[in-house]
Amino acid sequence: MIATLIVVLDLLGVAVFAVTGALIASRKQMDIVGFAFLATVTGIGGGTLRDLVLGVQPVFWVHKPVYVVVCIAIAAIVFFTAHIPESRYRLLLWLDALGLSFFCVVGADKALDADAGWFIAVVMGVITATFGGIVRDVLGGEVPIILRKEIYATAALAGSGIFVGAFAAGIPGTLAALAGFAVCLIIRGAALRRGWSLPTYRPRPARNPDELDRQ
Amino acid sequence: MIATLIVVLDLLGVAVFAVTGALIASRKQMDIVGFAFLATVTGIGGGTLRDLVLGVQPVFWVHKPVYVVVCIAIAAIVFFTAHIPESRYRLLLWLDALGLSFFCVVGADKALDADAGWFIAVVMGVITATFGGIVRDVLGGEVPIILRKEIYATAALAGSGIFVGAFAAGIPGTLAALAGFAVCLIIRGAALRRGWSLPTYRPRPARNPDELDRQ
Amino acid sequence: MIATLIVVLDLLGVAVFAVTGALIASRKQMDIVGFAFLATVTGIGGGTLRDLVLGVQPVFWVHKPVYVVVCIAIAAIVFFTAHIPESRYRLLLWLDALGLSFFCVVGADKALDADAGWFIAVVMGVITATFGGIVRDVLGGEVPIILRKEIYATAALAGSGIFVGAFAAGIPGTLAALAGFAVCLIIRGAALRRGWSLPTYRPRPARNPDELDRQ
Repeated sequence: MIATLIVVLDLLGVAVFAVTGALIASRKQMDIVGFAFLATVTGIGGGTLRDLVLGVQPVFWVHKPVYVVVCIAIAAIVFFTAHIPESRYRLLLWLDALGLSFFCVVGADKALDADAGWFIAVVMGVITATFGGIVRDVLGGEVPIILRKEIYATAALAGSGIFVGAFAAGIPGTLAALAGFAVCLIIRGAALRRGWSLPTYRPRPARNPDELDRQ
Repeated sequence: MIATLIVVLDLLGVAVFAVTGALIASRKQMDIVGFAFLATVTGIGGGTLRDLVLGVQPVFWVHKPVYVVVCIAIAAIVFFTAHIPESRYRLLLWLDALGLSFFCVVGADKALDADAGWFIAVVMGVITATFGGIVRDVLGGEVPIILRKEIYATAALAGSGIFVGAFAAGIPGTLAALAGFAVCLIIRGAALRRGWSLPTYRPRPARNPDELDRQ
Repeated sequence: MIATLIVVLDLLGVAVFAVTGALIASRKQMDIVGFAFLATVTGIGGGTLRDLVLGVQPVFWVHKPVYVVVCIAIAAIVFFTAHIPESRYRLLLWLDALGLSFFCVVGADKALDADAGWFIAVVMGVITATFGGIVRDVLGGEVPIILRKEIYATAALAGSGIFVGAFAAGIPGTLAALAGFAVCLIIRGAALRRGWSLPTYRPRPARNPDELDRQ
């Protein structure tokens, strides 16, 4: 039951991240193979790092090519429809938020499957959720979303923390997974709608001209 | 026979990518150790990701250090000769095209060796061929070649597709490998000489001032 | 004995790199979870790549979560104290030098443990020492320190070379490790204090207007 739900969440996460990769490709005016490339590395990037770090071999999409097929199909669809949304970047941010919410649960669950402790499971949830988007933004020449001011990694941390905590507390896995997903999406969604942010590091004026030069 | 040919193609691919890494180092006016570093990560980067994803352990150059020795030797040579070519960047683009053509076949072949299906083999060819250059450009602070307008990933896709398809059709491996190499090089070469490109995503004027701000 | 020393050097290396990651987070005015994220990927990045390449699975911090705990604790401390040092960037460079010196020995030692030859051990020392900082700078949107003019990778090369050479020559492991650490720190420290650099590639005026355009 939980296994089936995780497969669904995983596929949905791959799919929405693939859309965000293809949207970046459209901002860079790439050709259709470029769309497929960026959609695929964004969609499977987080899970690939997760499997490598956990020692799951070969990584998931080598045995289940359907993940790559989904990314390529999505890239083709976005290539012909990316002009339709009013604001592509806004859409990208919301789909990225969805992907973050799917993957923070999936990443933590896969870590628990691989016998990692609860702490590493939470960390793996955050890494899985954020890495695909980081690769997308670095390859696409964008400022990584994780560097933006509003809450981002914090939402993934809350989501995977709720999932792992609820699971450890004996709550049924399906419920725990949905709770983790919902918490991450609500927090990140509020950050997007209302610009929610945690207190950030407050800079002071540099006292050293050398530092000013370097900033 | 095919095994020997693949070793040769692999070494040639590592060598030409190492030259491109060293050429980027010369553009950044690095010292000789910087040349060796950038030449090595560019030369072995694609194959390293390939082996990690396929679960080949340890990765190829840990058992066969000759690959790293070749990269370092090439870096030393380029350090003293990089001023000779008329246009370093043009040379870099052509060597990168050669490396792309070698690696799209080698990557697909290694995936088939590791019992991956034909689809994943083609994908692995594209990833192996493009990743070293991506690492080189990201570390060297250049715009990744894969983001340029002319055909790039498409050539690697065609090359590894031809190789895997011909091999599956029963054509002798050596011939299939050479065909894949030739097809990739011809397509990428034509893209470089004549600016060939696939139809790219056509942007429309942004209707949303918010999006304009972000572009 | 040497095993205990390596554990200590490894923890110290993770700790100082975590501080540098948190300092970059402070320059980007991130929130506390952003600090924790950047401190962690910087602290454990080099060792993660090392373990992946050597085929050590799962990577070290999955079995020993204390490494991640240290990174997060450091991030919290830096979040509240980063305004104290006169020049954060100067501090970052010195801590990075310390981390480089710890990790060039640790990386080489782990490679020897995994039955790699002396040459690959030296290479692994350099890769382990430099990779965490590269990830930090790429994610933080900084110019990678490894691209700066003064000696950097060379110091790591000297440090891991001395360690591996002394060890192979029969010198006790503890002494060899401390010698490698000291040599790397002295060279990199001199580079920072006096701007030491190796002869770099000397550019000539471009003869080709096409090349000028691209530079």
